Amino acid sequence: MNILILSVGTRNKIVQYFKKELDGNGLVIATDASELAPALYDADKYYIVPRIDADEYIETIKKICIENNVKGILSLIDPELSILAEAKQEFIDIGVTPIISDLSQVDLCFDKYLFNERLKKLGFNAIRSYIDKEQFFQDVEKGIINYPVFVKPICGSASINISKAYSKEEVEFLYKRYDNLMIQEFMNGKEFGVDVYIDMISNKPTAVFIKEKLLMRAGETDKSVSVHDKELEAIIIKFVSKMEFKGVIDIDIFKVNNKYYISEVNPRFGGGYPHAYECGVNIPKLIMRNILGYKCDDNNISYDEGIYMMKYNDLKIINKVWFHE
Amino acid sequence: MNILILSVGTRNKIVQYFKKELDGNGLVIATDASELAPALYDADKYYIVPRIDADEYIETIKKICIENNVKGILSLIDPELSILAEAKQEFIDIGVTPIISDLSQVDLCFDKYLFNERLKKLGFNAIRSYIDKEQFFQDVEKGIINYPVFVKPICGSASINISKAYSKEEVEFLYKRYDNLMIQEFMNGKEFGVDVYIDMISNKPTAVFIKEKLLMRAGETDKSVSVHDKELEAIIIKFVSKMEFKGVIDIDIFKVNNKYYISEVNPRFGGGYPHAYECGVNIPKLIMRNILGYKCDDNNISYDEGIYMMKYNDLKIINKVWFHE
Repeated sequence: MNILILSVGTRNKIVQYFKKELDGNGLVIATDASELAPALYDADKYYIVPRIDADEYIETIKKICIENNVKGILSLIDPELSILAEAKQEFIDIGVTPIISDLSQVDLCFDKYLFNERLKKLGFNAIRSYIDKEQFFQDVEKGIINYPVFVKPICGSASINISKAYSKEEVEFLYKRYDNLMIQEFMNGKEFGVDVYIDMISNKPTAVFIKEKLLMRAGETDKSVSVHDKELEAIIIKFVSKMEFKGVIDIDIFKVNNKYYISEVNPRFGGGYPHAYECGVNIPKLIMRNILGYKCDDNNISYDEGIYMMKYNDLKIINKVWFHE
Repeated sequence: MNILILSVGTRNKIVQYFKKELDGNGLVIATDASELAPALYDADKYYIVPRIDADEYIETIKKICIENNVKGILSLIDPELSILAEAKQEFIDIGVTPIISDLSQVDLCFDKYLFNERLKKLGFNAIRSYIDKEQFFQDVEKGIINYPVFVKPICGSASINISKAYSKEEVEFLYKRYDNLMIQEFMNGKEFGVDVYIDMISNKPTAVFIKEKLLMRAGETDKSVSVHDKELEAIIIKFVSKMEFKGVIDIDIFKVNNKYYISEVNPRFGGGYPHAYECGVNIPKLIMRNILGYKCDDNNISYDEGIYMMKYNDLKIINKVWFHE
């Protein structure tokens, strides 16, 4: 069974894990728009493709699928997820299973304000959020919310342009500098990242891995520790049952004053997923089972707690004469 | 010969390279204040030590040196460099060679304004810089400098609190928010990182590796390509001969309108050094030669150009029960 991973970038570990799971019974094929994506060079085969916003992008990917008898496809970057979700049926029609939630769910994840509204409607704790800064200033005066606050893009990714603001002046300044911002309460507490696999046949969560984040770097979990937390696990199971995600997702959660707040969902492998894999939570295996048409057992994956993950930099060295022309 | 590397943090590759060079003929011993420093676990032996600002810090390190018959010592983090340089003679007295420049040179590197003044005095191009914002505003009006500019701490490290400012209002805002800032011309051109080894016996540069930086991430070179550039190499050799650095340093340079501007020096292994090592520029080997009391040959190290380096995340997984107590 051949697997195609799109926009692999620097996610070498994901490529390595799929190769390990396939164990020679199929190829991991990778794409990226840049030859400087190190994960390309860990794949069995790779293609340099047009940028995801190019007109011919989906056709190019479909052609690679057909030529290589690809059975499953996934993307590792946010801006591509809605493109892949939108083309879902086109891929299914050529015998390829896209590992992605439906478009409505993907879109909801990337509108952080709407996502937050949905959370409230479903009865979950939500982080206090504002698009209208005047409304926010009024609530500050009423004592409903205090500084500091986070000011961030409504549709953001990878912590880009997220700022902590300590005063009205700073909020005004940021609103002048950037468009489409929202203001969000600063959550001063513990932060968790949860990797979940939602079976694409049974629609049930078949893997849940909870890690407490200990350090972030450039918007990614840099150090974390595995934990078991029955209350949080129950919230996750309930949340997933009320939403309609499919495949692999990554959920960010804060715990403040003993209450859990779901902050956001990335409907793809999270940057901290290698921690889960190294603890035995083998999502590539579940994906392959689903692609073969088999359901996975309900949450049958166990892991130890107190296992620490720490990232460090490794590197790929490539001579330019090796590049595809 | 046993080597002690202080504050190893996430610099696993440096630990791995020293181990490879020692090839069993000595131990690489590592320290860090945190058990969550992944490079500790690549060393032959490690110690969790007090923070570098603790009173007993240097005594603790000296004790480790004596107990382990350590012959050479180096640090990988900026705030520790002046501490190590200050204690240089204490280490020499117990038979340990610190791989570090003298204190005056280390201090000069961390005062980016004074460093810049020194560059000008020595006749090198320097990036236009201001501490006095009123002087800067006057020069803007005269057309001597234009927006955008960088506003950054005079004594900064790892791109922390560096902001790009597009207007007087933004500069005023940043000066209100942070102390001890300077304003620097925005260099719109190519950026180079140069790894240099200055022989600690002959005081001559015995290795020079030039890479063009292609992408930065969290203040570190993330992608780069090796280059040969006779003009830049000559500038580096001249610069090093006029300064008094010792051991390994990392120099940042901009090229704008065909002119080179030295931006800053880190008197330690730079974050991009693994690129140099993988291209054959083996500084750990030169360090060991110096520790044994031998000079190294004058710049005898060659490397190929057009070799690309791309970083990606690997990870260490540690069960908490393995931690030293």
